[in-house]
Parts: sequence; C-alpha cells; structure tokens
Amino acid sequence: MGSWKSINDCEAFSSLVRCAENLPDLTRAGILTPERIERFRCSGPEFDLLYGCQRVTGEVLDLLQSLADECELVQQFRQMRRGAVMNRIQGYPSEERQALHTACRDLFSEIPACTPATEQAKKEHVKLRTFLQEVENGTICNSRGESFVNLLHVGIGGSDLGPRSIYEALRAYRITGRNVFFISNVDPDDAAAVLETLDLSRTLVSVVSKSGTTLETLSNETLVRAALKDAGLDPQKHCLAVTGESSPMDNPERYLRSFYMYDYIGGRFSSTSVVGTVMLGFALGIDQVEEFLEGAAMMDEAAEEEDVRSNLPLLLALLGIWNHNFLTMPTVAVLPYSQALHRFAAHLQQCDMESNGKSVQRNGEKLDTKSGPVVWGEPGTNGQHAFYQLLHQGTEDVAIEFIGFRQSQRLQDMEIQGSTSQQKLVANLLAQSLALAIGKEDENPNRRFPGNHPNSLLMGERLTARSMGALLALYESKIVFQGFCWNVNSFDQEGVQLGKVLANRILSAMEGKGEEKSLENGLLRGAGIA
Amino acid sequence: MGSWKSINDCEAFSSLVRCAENLPDLTRAGILTPERIERFRCSGPEFDLLYGCQRVTGEVLDLLQSLADECELVQQFRQMRRGAVMNRIQGYPSEERQALHTACRDLFSEIPACTPATEQAKKEHVKLRTFLQEVENGTICNSRGESFVNLLHVGIGGSDLGPRSIYEALRAYRITGRNVFFISNVDPDDAAAVLETLDLSRTLVSVVSKSGTTLETLSNETLVRAALKDAGLDPQKHCLAVTGESSPMDNPERYLRSFYMYDYIGGRFSSTSVVGTVMLGFALGIDQVEEFLEGAAMMDEAAEEEDVRSNLPLLLALLGIWNHNFLTMPTVAVLPYSQALHRFAAHLQQCDMESNGKSVQRNGEKLDTKSGPVVWGEPGTNGQHAFYQLLHQGTEDVAIEFIGFRQSQRLQDMEIQGSTSQQKLVANLLAQSLALAIGKEDENPNRRFPGNHPNSLLMGERLTARSMGALLALYESKIVFQGFCWNVNSFDQEGVQLGKVLANRILSAMEGKGEEKSLENGLLRGAGIA
Repeated sequence: MGSWKSINDCEAFSSLVRCAENLPDLTRAGILTPERIERFRCSGPEFDLLYGCQRVTGEVLDLLQSLADECELVQQFRQMRRGAVMNRIQGYPSEERQALHTACRDLFSEIPACTPATEQAKKEHVKLRTFLQEVENGTICNSRGESFVNLLHVGIGGSDLGPRSIYEALRAYRITGRNVFFISNVDPDDAAAVLETLDLSRTLVSVVSKSGTTLETLSNETLVRAALKDAGLDPQKHCLAVTGESSPMDNPERYLRSFYMYDYIGGRFSSTSVVGTVMLGFALGIDQVEEFLEGAAMMDEAAEEEDVRSNLPLLLALLGIWNHNFLTMPTVAVLPYSQALHRFAAHLQQCDMESNGKSVQRNGEKLDTKSGPVVWGEPGTNGQHAFYQLLHQGTEDVAIEFIGFRQSQRLQDMEIQGSTSQQKLVANLLAQSLALAIGKEDENPNRRFPGNHPNSLLMGERLTARSMGALLALYESKIVFQGFCWNVNSFDQEGVQLGKVLANRILSAMEGKGEEKSLENGLLRGAGIA
Repeated sequence: MGSWKSINDCEAFSSLVRCAENLPDLTRAGILTPERIERFRCSGPEFDLLYGCQRVTGEVLDLLQSLADECELVQQFRQMRRGAVMNRIQGYPSEERQALHTACRDLFSEIPACTPATEQAKKEHVKLRTFLQEVENGTICNSRGESFVNLLHVGIGGSDLGPRSIYEALRAYRITGRNVFFISNVDPDDAAAVLETLDLSRTLVSVVSKSGTTLETLSNETLVRAALKDAGLDPQKHCLAVTGESSPMDNPERYLRSFYMYDYIGGRFSSTSVVGTVMLGFALGIDQVEEFLEGAAMMDEAAEEEDVRSNLPLLLALLGIWNHNFLTMPTVAVLPYSQALHRFAAHLQQCDMESNGKSVQRNGEKLDTKSGPVVWGEPGTNGQHAFYQLLHQGTEDVAIEFIGFRQSQRLQDMEIQGSTSQQKLVANLLAQSLALAIGKEDENPNRRFPGNHPNSLLMGERLTARSMGALLALYESKIVFQGFCWNVNSFDQEGVQLGKVLANRILSAMEGKGEEKSLENGLLRGAGIA
C-alpha cells in the first residue's frame, strides 16, 4: 500500500486552477455545436454520457487525465477490487477493512478480482435461489399453507435507502401479486403507518442489520414481532435475518433463515449484497437479480479503463471534481427524468455524503481542499415546476447531472397534442440541459437567462434491472474515485458517533438520571419535555 | 407602494458583516448553557423555536431587528395581506398581481385583512362543504350507487407538491377507508404505476390546473380519462376541476364539479386554497380542513408582530438571512424528526427556491447580494444514517432547521431497552442539535468534531391538522419575508419559460421539422434519438 496524493498535491492542479479562470462561454454563438456534443460524449455499459454542456475543453480533459494518473485513481480502484485494505487512516485507530462491495456482483467472470469474497457472495446467492424456489413452490408458506405475497424490509441507512430506491426503480417488473414494504425510522408512526395496511399473515419480514444491534432496527423489529403475535402468528415463521455471520441476529430459533453480509462491505455500498438481493429476489425473481448484478459487474469492469474519456465512472467523478473544486460549486443536483428513480437521489445522499463528507486525509492530516458536495435532487419534470427557477436565474451555483431514458418502463403511453408523454419527457430533459447551458438575452432583466450552468446528461435505453445495476455501480464508483481524489477514507463514518453518545445522555436525562443543571436538562426544558 | 431596500442597502448591513467576523464559539465551555437555550427561544402558534445553537448574540438580534425595520418587512407583509400588488417588477412587463394566499385561511376573524379575496375563499369553502356532505350521504356516488373511497389528485408543481406533502403529513387522521393518490410527472410510468393499483369505479379524480392548460396535467388527465372509459365508466361522473373560473377546464359537461382558484394566489402558495382543501376535505373531512386553515391563520396573525424576537416567521427568516448572507452558507437543510413530514422538504424546495431563486430586484436592477439558498432535507433519524456524516465532519457548511414533536401522531408505541420509540426519536433530535453545535475534541483527528454548525429547533406538541397549517404558513411567511429582504419578487417564475420554449423546439425536431444541422438535432443524435 503506497501513500496517495490528494488532488491539490498534483502538478495538474495549478493548471486546472488557471483553466477555471478562463472557461468556455457556452452562451456564445458557435461554441455549443452539434460537433461539441459529439466530441464530449462517452459510451459505457448501458449508458452514454453527454458532457458538452459542461464547461470543459480538450485541455481540461487532458489535465483531468493527468490528475487521474498522478493520483493513481484507476490503480487504487483495481487494488480495492482485489482486496486491499482501503478502509483505514494511517497512524490512527481505524476500521482497517477491505472495501469489497464489487465482489458481490463479480459472479460472471471466470477469474473474479477477489475470489474469497466472491465465493462468499456466491454461497449466499445459492442460498437465496433455494429460498426463493421454496417460497415459489410453497415449501415455505404461512401456517395456513398460503403463499407469502408481501415482504416487509426493516432496516435503516445503508440497509434501507439503497434497497428502497432500487425497489421503487424496478417495481414495474415485480412478480404479479408481490409487494415490498419498508420501515426504517425509529419514529413509531413509520411502523404504525406501514403495519396498518399489511396482511401480516401473508408477509415475510426481512430484518437487516450487519451488527444485529442497530437500535432503530431492533426497535422496529420489536414492534413488528408484537404485531405478528397480536395477529396470532409465529414470528419465527415469518422473519428473515440479513446480518453478519454469528451476530446476535444469526439465530435459527428466532429467524426462518439467515443471509450473511460481511464486514468488508459498508452499509451504503451494500445494495448488491444480500441487503438488496433478498428484497429484490422476492419482488422480481432470481433471474432479474442476476440481470441487476450483471449490469453492476459490467460497470465495475469499465471502471478499470485508464483513459478518462472512455471510463464512464471516472469521467463522471472528474467532472464532479472540476465543478466542485475548481468551479467552486457547493452542491450537485441529480435529476432523473424517470419517476421510478424518485428515491435515487436519497440513496446517493447517503452513498456520497457519508462516504466523502470528510475533512481528514488517509494519512491522518487535515484535508486542505473541499471534499464531498451536498447532493440533492427530485425527478423531472416535477422539478421543473419546483426548484428549476433557482437553477436558471438564482444566485447559487449548482452542478447538474441529468439522467434519462429513451423508452418508458411500462410502455403504456398515449399521443396527446402530437407527441407521447415519453417524447414530452425526453424533450423536456434535453431542453433543460440546453437552456441551462446557452441561456437567453432579453430586454427585460427579469427574463434574462445567464446560461453557463454546467450539466451533463446520462442517457440509457430503458430503466431495467440491468441498467439499474449499472447505474448504481456507476455512482458507487464515481464516489469511490472522488474519495481517492481527495485522499479521504470513503468507507468509514466516524461522524455519526457523537450523536449516538449524546442521544444516550439525553435519554438518561429523560429518565431523570442527569444533573438538574446540565445542558441536556436545559435543552429538555427548552423543548418542553419536563 | 413605496420602493423598498435590499438588505445590503441597510445601515445595519455593515455592522452585521462585522459581527460575522467575530462569532460566538459554541464549542467553548460556558457558552452554550441552559440559560442561553432559555434566552434564545421564541414561542409562536403551535411551535416554539429554540435558536441557542445558532451563532447569534444579543447584538446580532438587535441588528436583525434594525434590518427588519429598515426593510419594512412587517409593513410589507401587512400590505401584502391587505391586497397590495406585490407580484411585479417596476418599469418592466410583469404579472402585476396581488399575492393573497393568506386570504384563503383568513376565515376566522370578524374583519378579514382583505375582504373580497376572503369572500371568494368562503364561497369555495361552502361549495366544498356541500360537496363533501353529498359524497358522505351518497348523493354523489358511482353509477352502481357505491360511495367514492379514493381520490386521485392530478396536478404538477404547486398543484402537487404542497397537497402531497400535507396529505402524507396528515394521512394518519383520514376517514376510515378513504385514500388519496397522486399523479404529477409527464413520465407515463407515473400514471401507469398509480392506475394499476386503483379501483377506478370507486375513485374521484381531481384535476388541478389554474390555467386549465398545463401540458403535463392535461396529458395525465387524458391518460386517466382513457383508463376510466376502459373500465366502462363515465369520466364526467368521476372528474372534478380545480381551476380558474372560466378556464377551459371550467366545464360542467366534462366535470362533476368545479372549484375555483384565483390569479392572486401562485401555485406554490396555493395549499390552503381549494388546491389543497378539496383533497384534504375528502381525506379527513371538513372539520379537519378548518383546523388546518385556522392553524395557518394564527401563524399569519403572528407574522404581523413588529418585534423580531417574538415573531416566529420573521425570526426564522432573519436567522436564515444571517446564515446565508453573512455566514455565507449556500444551503439549508430542513430535517423533520417525523416520518409523516417526509415530503415536506420537497414542498419547501418549490415554495422557497421558486420564490427566491432570483437575481433581479423589484425595481428591475440586478441584485448584488445572494438571494435564496438551496433547500433540501430528509426525515431524521433516517438522515442520521445517511448524510449527517457530512454535516458533522465535511467541508460544506449547511444551515440546519430541525423540526420535532413531543408526541407521536398515532400514539402507538412500545418501550424497548428502557425508552419508547418516540423518546428515542426526540432524544436523537436534541442530541444532533447539540452535537452539531458543541462538537468534540479527540486525539484521533478522524474522530474530531469541529462543532459550531448553526442549527435551530422547531418544537411542536404533535403533528395535527392545526399544527400542519401553522407549519405551512410559518414557512410560507419565512419565504415571503426573505424575499422582501432581498427585494426580489417572490411571486413570479420567469425562469421556467426558456425550458418550455426549447422543449417545443425539440419536440418539433423529433417530428423531423427542425433543420438537419441544428443544435436540437445534434442533441437528439447525441442522446441516441434519431
């Protein structure tokens, strides 16, 4: 393991700073042309990236290539995939783990990048296949011999946001009659709202926690088990454990089955492990799970290409660095023109901001550049009627990543006023990309559009299990590459600890155990909780 | 109508800049005390605001008061409520309208602030009451004489995000058996996904468009009408129009009933008009609608108080200005510790960013300060397991507004490990507020928390129709006050026009009407749409 550079230690850095002072003006006639669109276009698995509406030049791309080479981005990615201990801070106590989320989809090549991890993933995959067959053929059924039609997924954070966004993305393809529901928040109203709609007798409950001790998840599991008992059902016959091997949850007396996740996969990168596949397999069937995994695996392969211009995840990562570190844009909006992706930005918020919202380098030194941006977004065209006003005419600079598909998922459409809804959707997508870049002059200052808002456009054919797998892996690798650029550890989350400690202190104060004059008691009084 | 100042024209501005260079250090012992928490606390209708974790001093509050006075914020608010033409840009063509969203909830005082608008709102309210009675007593029913149990709300932007977030917030209280569904996106998959689950024979369809010509909404309405016909139903017997009087949709041959909205209420401020109340009345009943409106009306009254320290919306607005314009924080995260508020941030994104994402003052001059920030957020505790890492240890500065309630909505809870879920939820909320402010030193740089992240805490007793009305009006008025501060017109949305024009051009190109070498065609080719 070498020691790596952060981008601002690279020779290319100062040249990029200079380039950022002399940006191409996309609003000028003759700059944004069909040729430019063709020139700044990268094809990868399942997606093409159009980045002619970014404020880049050939020189900028050359310098980003130098940056990538100096920071050994692809080499680090290769090491990660092959099992290097990437989750660490040199010289300080840290998690000291591998980061092997890529291994759980590396099921399709003859020689996996990291055989031991892929062997473990294959074992769980075979268990899942058998389990799903048993659900299908009725070997696994409820006490009245009826099949299970619902799966209730109980998790939080990495055990919730990824699976939820994938389910929403692909629910159009689910097995007839099957539905998945989610409970995550420790807010008791979350569980109550979901439980009121469910026929628990036909419901499998998948409890997801690597440690088997996540407090929110245990609380919700307890609520669900109580509801099962109230309905005269035996929880052990309904509950699955998705957890670490030999965690407190790995207990056949309490769970129908256990599926294992491993320490070398962090929660926010676990969607292609059993965290996502148990849910997805129940909803869509094992074949679709394999499509999903294969899409992700293809994207991982593509991420090992050294040439920035033909490595989709690396390119997306470096365009993000360009906008964030050189054009100083604090936020990135991910705007999918697909209603099915309505929770994708929420998943990215976790995957990106928990990975790269850091200030310490992997050598323990303070980072002296910006790390991860704020990530947010909602689907278009809804967003157009909401916050796009600010994107076009506001005073905040937002880097934009559009996502679109040529076809709809369900292929149910109608021609209205000369075009189908899907055509209108795509036309709006392309129009926004263009409008943000080229802007418009007007005599009325209130109708002026300054333009030059950098954006890129990720286009796929159709949102399927395979393209969703590719999309997920694309963003995971983008995030990993950016973490490498900043030389931060993208795989730990020390920033969540302090809140946990203080929450326990406040719970103690609630029970009257704290000191009368403590800050916790002051806060409780201020909040009206005596 | 006078001409108003922007904050940077105020005398207090430079003093505030100086204060921002010498901020209270909340991480130092003895600064954040129970006394400070008590001192920086404001009570308003249904909510208390705790802002001791903001980086303010008594001097800063005095200066914010001066700013408010110099900008005549409360006076402008009073003028707005009384019918002044606030939606205009002096010297240029503009909408030239009143901004009277407050009038539709001003139903409870003897002398309304603007009688003509409130009279119109009352008329619609009486129509709604009658309509709901007829639905209830079976006068309005389907062709088989069965009652309607579903309402399908079809709208987009302001006709969707507000109503949707309110429904989600209050669905715990809905009339047994009744459900509301929403279609908004022009993406055909949105309508298809909703329609597949619905028994249309028992469904009322509420189509919401002020102009009666919104393309997305008309497209979705057409899809829904086709589905009704396919199911052998008469659309006229199922469809309601929520629209402007004498718009193309105001047509009894096509709609069972029309409810009117007026030009003086913008879409994003229309949630307390029939845009929200038809949906909410169906779901919860007219009494709950009145509770909701009364909560909002109380907050409007409270917004007329001159003293910043006791005017909740004004205080929230000015703390936002302090963080955004003086502490230069580009984004604000609204983090409700209530799963029922999971779409509230999406509504605020529209209400805030479409209102204040502007660069031109109301006198037509370019604004030379920052206007509206990027608004985003997800519910806690989910967010804690997602993006809070960045809030605590990242390099981006985020201003934070927490929202919490002492009680859960459904009052279904269990004690687990010594505390209920609601107690855990509130403990986490308070702990995060504290942790962000005070931080923590550590020998391990990766476990250091710098603290000093400004945040405030809005606490209510319980999320009810009344408190939801108050919360909605609180944020509406916050946004309006901030718009006044920046001297922008918060009530127009010229920034959405260019995209519409270009979308039509691209639709033409799709039909083969454009020039072969045009940019539109280049983009279509690049996107793989031949």
